[in-house]
Amino acid sequence: MERAIELALEGVGHNAGGPFGAVVVLDGEVIGEAHNEVLSKKDPTAHAEVGAIRAASRHLQSFHLSGAELYTSCEPCPMCLAAAQWARITRIWYAGTRADAARAGFDDDHFYSQLALPAAERQMPAEELLRTAAQPAFEAWLARPDRTVY
Amino acid sequence: MERAIELALEGVGHNAGGPFGAVVVLDGEVIGEAHNEVLSKKDPTAHAEVGAIRAASRHLQSFHLSGAELYTSCEPCPMCLAAAQWARITRIWYAGTRADAARAGFDDDHFYSQLALPAAERQMPAEELLRTAAQPAFEAWLARPDRTVY
Repeated sequence: MERAIELALEGVGHNAGGPFGAVVVLDGEVIGEAHNEVLSKKDPTAHAEVGAIRAASRHLQSFHLSGAELYTSCEPCPMCLAAAQWARITRIWYAGTRADAARAGFDDDHFYSQLALPAAERQMPAEELLRTAAQPAFEAWLARPDRTVY
Repeated sequence: MERAIELALEGVGHNAGGPFGAVVVLDGEVIGEAHNEVLSKKDPTAHAEVGAIRAASRHLQSFHLSGAELYTSCEPCPMCLAAAQWARITRIWYAGTRADAARAGFDDDHFYSQLALPAAERQMPAEELLRTAAQPAFEAWLARPDRTVY
């Protein structure tokens, strides 16, 4: 966790992005680390946890990180939490909280509240369109005998 | 939306990942598109919507895509929905639903259910550690007069 916080400070020092750092650890070894780079990369998805998970996936050459733990200097936003779920991270440790992030001007807590609402009540509308037209893609997937579920 | 579905079919054809495609549109122009590449890139975050948002951000050289709409061949998972929130996407259109994704073997619906639970009740434990030690990173951020909030 101390390394994750150190990365957060580094990122702020470089004006790379918000004050967030993250480290992925497997069997006591760091296999991926990153700080937030939203500003320097002009990429809204370049959060510390996403960066650390991507680095760890490159390191293991695997889209699954089962058994790995994620240390992050702040409670993950919903994007990063779900990224950890897809990566099958085993456990998350966080230092700052979503309340700390809110005090620093970040919307994590707001987005968690929005996600808990029915889609129709969210600020960002999401509507269904052409559902039937999408079914052949699902059928093509299910028809692949070599499909890998992840 | 037809382009998003076409991308989904392309991705399955290449065995790049699941049957998902996405397009970001601004003022009637496609500014970013992608299909899922989790398998081919061995990257658990390489969902179609994340790819399309990253491509659009590169195109505009901006971490905000205000005014843009996201067309995706399937309802976004929580990671992709929150990525769209961070990018300030104005509206989402989706074809398949999280139920369609579940039938194809994907955990989107499960992850939504998990996110709605208190952290202590989720399958993936997330615990606070060293909260005080993280505060200097937030303070360093707030002390930057040139900080850009995103």
